[in-house]
Amino acid sequence: MDYRKVKESSFKLASLSADKRNAALRAIKDALVNQKDRIIQSNKADLERAKIENIAQPLYKRLKFDEDKLAEVVGGIESLIELPDPLFATLLRRQLDDGLILSKETCPIGVIGVIFESRPDALVQISALCVKSGNCSVLKGGSEAMQTNITLFEIIKEAGQNAGLPENFITLIESREGVNEMLKCHGDIDLLIPRGSNEFVQYIMENSKIPVMGHADGICHVYVDKDADFAKAIPIIMDSKLQYVAVCNATETLLVHKDAAGILNMLQEQAKGKIELRGCEATRKYIDCIPAEEIDFNTEYLDAILSIKIVDDIQEAVNHINRYGSHHTDCIITENDDAAAFFMDNTDSAGVYQNCSTRFADGFRYGFGAEVGVSTGKLHARGPVGLDGLVTYKYKLRGNGHLVADYSEGRKTFKFKDF
Amino acid sequence: MDYRKVKESSFKLASLSADKRNAALRAIKDALVNQKDRIIQSNKADLERAKIENIAQPLYKRLKFDEDKLAEVVGGIESLIELPDPLFATLLRRQLDDGLILSKETCPIGVIGVIFESRPDALVQISALCVKSGNCSVLKGGSEAMQTNITLFEIIKEAGQNAGLPENFITLIESREGVNEMLKCHGDIDLLIPRGSNEFVQYIMENSKIPVMGHADGICHVYVDKDADFAKAIPIIMDSKLQYVAVCNATETLLVHKDAAGILNMLQEQAKGKIELRGCEATRKYIDCIPAEEIDFNTEYLDAILSIKIVDDIQEAVNHINRYGSHHTDCIITENDDAAAFFMDNTDSAGVYQNCSTRFADGFRYGFGAEVGVSTGKLHARGPVGLDGLVTYKYKLRGNGHLVADYSEGRKTFKFKDF
Repeated sequence: MDYRKVKESSFKLASLSADKRNAALRAIKDALVNQKDRIIQSNKADLERAKIENIAQPLYKRLKFDEDKLAEVVGGIESLIELPDPLFATLLRRQLDDGLILSKETCPIGVIGVIFESRPDALVQISALCVKSGNCSVLKGGSEAMQTNITLFEIIKEAGQNAGLPENFITLIESREGVNEMLKCHGDIDLLIPRGSNEFVQYIMENSKIPVMGHADGICHVYVDKDADFAKAIPIIMDSKLQYVAVCNATETLLVHKDAAGILNMLQEQAKGKIELRGCEATRKYIDCIPAEEIDFNTEYLDAILSIKIVDDIQEAVNHINRYGSHHTDCIITENDDAAAFFMDNTDSAGVYQNCSTRFADGFRYGFGAEVGVSTGKLHARGPVGLDGLVTYKYKLRGNGHLVADYSEGRKTFKFKDF
Repeated sequence: MDYRKVKESSFKLASLSADKRNAALRAIKDALVNQKDRIIQSNKADLERAKIENIAQPLYKRLKFDEDKLAEVVGGIESLIELPDPLFATLLRRQLDDGLILSKETCPIGVIGVIFESRPDALVQISALCVKSGNCSVLKGGSEAMQTNITLFEIIKEAGQNAGLPENFITLIESREGVNEMLKCHGDIDLLIPRGSNEFVQYIMENSKIPVMGHADGICHVYVDKDADFAKAIPIIMDSKLQYVAVCNATETLLVHKDAAGILNMLQEQAKGKIELRGCEATRKYIDCIPAEEIDFNTEYLDAILSIKIVDDIQEAVNHINRYGSHHTDCIITENDDAAAFFMDNTDSAGVYQNCSTRFADGFRYGFGAEVGVSTGKLHARGPVGLDGLVTYKYKLRGNGHLVADYSEGRKTFKFKDF
């Protein structure tokens, strides 16, 4: 792949108006609908191969791309078209002096590499988000979905180019070696968004100089405060842990204030046959469960397992989360708003919750309309990342022969005025 | 150094109100004024050692910390106190459903490591910026300024702690080994801001997993368009190149549209005895100068040297800048606003200018009141970085027992409403 060429396309894409980008999205949407049969045919080939290779049932389900899935992604593109343009927004307009005008304007990041899981619908969602935000996308999907991905890519590329998008606005990588080649393209690729297993994301982070946005693991906590309402706490714990265990915003560890330890019996009752409980020594004085080792508190189970620790006070709970957590999403159950405020200010996570499930940490549930991933880093975008996370800004300064020497030598002074 | 303890202090600092942080800044300012003699005494020791070691004159000048410098940094702290609080600002407040309220609020990044040049006033400026933005600072200054830095650090630390800032709100590193130790503290230090030579910044970027904000080099360009007013162009080129040659926003390369090559004779006249000109082959048909090699266009001279290249059109100019530049600041000289718009949209730099000196790329000249550095990265902060670049945000979600299962199983639907 010549990523230099992708980079050059990105400047052309960056200067297209919102109307042109939206028109291209409409053309892409129509092409997907019109070539429905071709897509489903390709997906059948992937599904057949998956059957022969005997892949796990949940993976098989995610691989499937039928009329319902198509309707869903088409609906997604339609709502994306309706969203306000994230580009060319003026964040600041300031007179520095007579005739010297500074403006800070949003612009695309440039070229974004996204490595995603086996769902072929992710290819459509991500490439559409990139078109909307004026970024070129370089995509690598799961190899199980290869045929479907190639077909979707060809349809999107053709429709987008015919609608005026620059060549290389979208690139598909088909091999693992292609990923390694991409990791070396510091300078031509501006941002990597890896979605997948902890080990995989770690590998990307350690093997590229390109900035990475995302998260390696999701070790989320629910803390039951001494002022908790147990009737609220139990369903929140069950939902946070069990509603979908294989995702990053599922809770892995329950922290319980020592004065709230009475909840443990209720929890054990509810969890019976559903969740494997692993408790610290103090926990095991209240309920009979598997002992939790140090490593449990460092583990993203992605399974129906919950580690439990009793803490002396809210400070210990916060310290535990800041030390063992992954800065993703953590929740306090309390009726005491001062305790909630302390927890929210002192917990170093992208999402800090009171009295609701950690599973809400998601771009769609936040009303962003779309999500490229969840970031546990603290720079640029944090938490669920929507369109906003795909743009940066530049400073434009327009003058009329203005020189710095005039100001540093006192002949002129700045006249700052925002307008 | 136990950076875990610094990290823990950072959570305490993060929850302090603006009043408390401003009161601490006032106490620090008073302490610096009251202990003026002690500071100047320490600085004399550094200056004497510098004399013995025969350090270069510009370095000696920057090392000096006298009453004027003190007045300057005290004035800086006073204006910092007046600036609006960058923390606890609500960027978004959204109802997700009845009683389920999402808010996106600014908060500090946490612990920020800054490695800066020999000016001791930088220590005061940076630590004050960090206090204002609720971040703990870990500072390493130039070894030439060691005595002055230790004294300033002791005064600031004592005054800050007495005014209620947490222990470890400021840390001074005194050795090069201390820097290497810091680079390994991924997880406890959230951001590194190295200021200094290209090689040094590269070293930091390559030897730490901690995110780095800043710039390695500053290869800025002035492009003289075919519709340029030469009478504006010449002073802008001279100011961009010569006003202060040793800084990142000084221009290193001049690009000239082939139809504007008439400017070269005027420039040669002006530059005589002041700037060494190095031209491409086409340039040397117009003026007699040293040949510019490929490497010249990759070089940040930091000296009174200017490389010159003639280009066929604006697209070639933009391509050259995007390829050889450092995404810092680049200027077009033109009376044609369409050409300026094309240049500004297609040039991939933090600052894109029309008809003014590249030397304006500076936090103070942008009216930010303060600057921690200039970023040539595209994520998080870009260009001159003020207080805004030292904060991130978190999402706070307050509910009343809300569960995701209710939404995914259709019993409830989201009612998004911003307010």
